Amino acid sequence: MELTTSSNIKVVTAKESKINSVDFENLTFGNVFTDHMLVCDYHDGAWDQPVIMPYESFTMDPSSRVFHYGQAIFEGMKAYKDDNDDVWLFRPDQNFERFNKSAVRLAMPEVPEEVFLGGLHKLLEVEKDWVKKGKGNTLYIRPFMIATGQGVIASPSNEYRFCVILSPAKAYYSGEVKVVIADHYSRAANGGIGAAKAAGNYSGQFYPTKLANEKGFQQVIWTDDATHTKLEEAGTMNVFFRINDTLYTAPTSERILDGVTRKSIVELAPTLGINVEVRPVLVSEIVEAAKNGTLKEIFGAGTAAVVNPIAGFSYQDTYYELPKLENSFAAIIKEKLTNIQHKLDTDTFGWTVKV
Amino acid sequence: MELTTSSNIKVVTAKESKINSVDFENLTFGNVFTDHMLVCDYHDGAWDQPVIMPYESFTMDPSSRVFHYGQAIFEGMKAYKDDNDDVWLFRPDQNFERFNKSAVRLAMPEVPEEVFLGGLHKLLEVEKDWVKKGKGNTLYIRPFMIATGQGVIASPSNEYRFCVILSPAKAYYSGEVKVVIADHYSRAANGGIGAAKAAGNYSGQFYPTKLANEKGFQQVIWTDDATHTKLEEAGTMNVFFRINDTLYTAPTSERILDGVTRKSIVELAPTLGINVEVRPVLVSEIVEAAKNGTLKEIFGAGTAAVVNPIAGFSYQDTYYELPKLENSFAAIIKEKLTNIQHKLDTDTFGWTVKV
Repeated sequence: MELTTSSNIKVVTAKESKINSVDFENLTFGNVFTDHMLVCDYHDGAWDQPVIMPYESFTMDPSSRVFHYGQAIFEGMKAYKDDNDDVWLFRPDQNFERFNKSAVRLAMPEVPEEVFLGGLHKLLEVEKDWVKKGKGNTLYIRPFMIATGQGVIASPSNEYRFCVILSPAKAYYSGEVKVVIADHYSRAANGGIGAAKAAGNYSGQFYPTKLANEKGFQQVIWTDDATHTKLEEAGTMNVFFRINDTLYTAPTSERILDGVTRKSIVELAPTLGINVEVRPVLVSEIVEAAKNGTLKEIFGAGTAAVVNPIAGFSYQDTYYELPKLENSFAAIIKEKLTNIQHKLDTDTFGWTVKV
Repeated sequence: MELTTSSNIKVVTAKESKINSVDFENLTFGNVFTDHMLVCDYHDGAWDQPVIMPYESFTMDPSSRVFHYGQAIFEGMKAYKDDNDDVWLFRPDQNFERFNKSAVRLAMPEVPEEVFLGGLHKLLEVEKDWVKKGKGNTLYIRPFMIATGQGVIASPSNEYRFCVILSPAKAYYSGEVKVVIADHYSRAANGGIGAAKAAGNYSGQFYPTKLANEKGFQQVIWTDDATHTKLEEAGTMNVFFRINDTLYTAPTSERILDGVTRKSIVELAPTLGINVEVRPVLVSEIVEAAKNGTLKEIFGAGTAAVVNPIAGFSYQDTYYELPKLENSFAAIIKEKLTNIQHKLDTDTFGWTVKV
C-alpha cells in the first residue's frame, strides 16, 4: 500500500538543518525534533491550507481554550526506513481514524485525510533524512490538535490548530518495568473520554504514577473505576496477560484505548501459534494465577514501547514477581512485529504503507 | 479581613490602556481582558519572581506538555467594588487552597501564597479601574497554571507557568436554562480528577453538552459514572434541589468539585430560614418529586453564575417542567449572596476580603 498524497500543501524550508548536531545513538525519547513541522489552522468552520514550515514556537493567547478546558488530542505513530532507503508507516489509517474519533468525542472538528495523511506524506518526504536505517531506529510521529480559540468560557473553541511534529527515537522504555495494580485511583470513567487519545486522560495519571514511582514501580495498570476488579490498560500501553499458554487482554471499551499495537498483536499472535482471548481480565484471577504459578507473563503494548515486558506487579502491597522466561511470548511477538514494521519480514497483513 | 500582600513583585506597566475602548454595559463573559496579567514561571524546582506585565501572547514550544498531556488547572474568582471605591474579594483563601489541591492531584508544583494571593493583590491594585461599581458588575479573575516543559513523553513537566488574567463581567448565564440529566456520558471517575479544577474535566463534557444543546437543553447535570443513579454536579456549577421546603445537594467527593459558592450556600441558607441537607441525591427521587409536585426548584451554584435557576429537566427523553415561583429560594439566596459580595449587606461570615 502507498500513503495518501496531497498537492495542496505549502512548504517553507528551514534555512539550515540541525540534523548534524543530533547524536542518533543517544536519543532521549520525545526530546529532539526535526527541522520542520506541519501546521494547519481551523477557523470560521474550515481548515486552512496546510503548511510545512520550520519547527518553531507557537504564539498563544493566555485565554486559549486548550490552557483552560483541555481540548487537545493526539496520536503516536512511527516511520521506519528499509534497506532500500524507502520510508514506511505502520497502519497509518488506524491512527487517522482514531484521531477523528477522538476529535468527535472532544467536540473538535475532524481533520481531512489529505491534511492528516497527505500532510504527513509530504512532511516525511521533506524529513526523510531523519529516518535512520536499522532495526530499533524510528522516527516518532506526533500529530496533535489543540483549541486555539480565545475566551475563558467553558464551551468548545471555534478555532483549532492541527500540527505534526517528528522526533527521532530509539526504544521508549529501558530497564526492568514493575507495575502497581490500581486499587483506588483511576484513569477513566464510564461514559468518559478514556477511549479517546485526549490530553485530559494523561494528566490525572501522573500523581498516582508518582506515588507508584516512590515505591519503586515504574507504571500503573489501571482497573475499572467502579469496582477496581477488572484490569484495563497501563495508560500509555494496553496490557496482555499470559496464563499458561494463552494470552488474555481486555476488550476495548469507553474506558480503554483501542491501541493499534494491541489489535495487531491480537491478529498476529495466532499466526505464531499463540492463542489470544479478548475478554475481561480480573485482578483476582491474575493474583491467583501468580500465586499458583500459572501466570507466566505480563506485557504492555503500544506504539512508543512496541512490546514492553513487565517483571512483576504489586497489588494491595503484596509484590508478585514474574518468572524470567526464555522465548517469552513478549519476545516472540516483539521480534515479529518489529521485523514487519522494519520490512525485515513479509507483511502478510498489509499493515505497512510506503511513503 | 485584608488580602495578603507581597513586596516581591515586578511591575511592567502597559504603555496605553484599552479601558476606554471597552463597552462595560455590553460584555460577553470571558472575552475581554484587562491591560495587565500576572506571570510567574517555575523551573529547576523553584518559582521565579512574579511579574505583572502587559497582557500579551505566550510563546510556546509545540511539544509543551500542556498541549499533549493536559497538565493544566485553574480557578474562577471575582472582584467587586463598593461605593467607597474599595475592591473586595469573596473567600479568596478557598480558591487558593483548592488551586493547590488541584496542583497536587495533577502532579504540578504548589503555588506559594505570596505569589497567588500577594500577586493577585498587586494585580488588582494596578487594574482597579477595571472593577466597576454597581451590583452585577464584577471583575472575573482567572488564575491558571500550565505545563510549559518540552517533550512528547507522558510524564509530569518540570517547567510550569502560573498566570492570572482578568476579565470584566456582567452575569454569566442569561435566559432560561433547561438541563438534561446524564444517563450515559460522565464527567468524572471514582479515583479520578473530578474534584480538581483541571482542564481535563471540561473537554469531555463538551460533546455530551452539544448533544443536549441540539435537543434544546443548555446544560447537563452529571450523575455518578458507575450507576447513573446519583445526581452530582453540572460541570461548571454545583446543583441544589428543593423538595418541599428543604434544599438538597450532593456531598463533595473525588468526583465533585468543592465549590466555594456551594459551601457558602450551605452555610448561608439556614440563616435565611432555609433548611439544607447535604446527602446523596438520587435521580429517582427527583423524578418522583417532579411527578408528585414536591420538586419546587433546581438551581446551579458557582462563581461565574452565582445562582442559576433551572426551568426544567429532561431524563430519559421525558421533560419535567418546574413551577415558576415567586420568592424562590434561588432568588432569595442569590440576592443575599450578591449583596454580601458587593458589600451591600453585612458580612457576618467574614467571607469578604479587602484588597
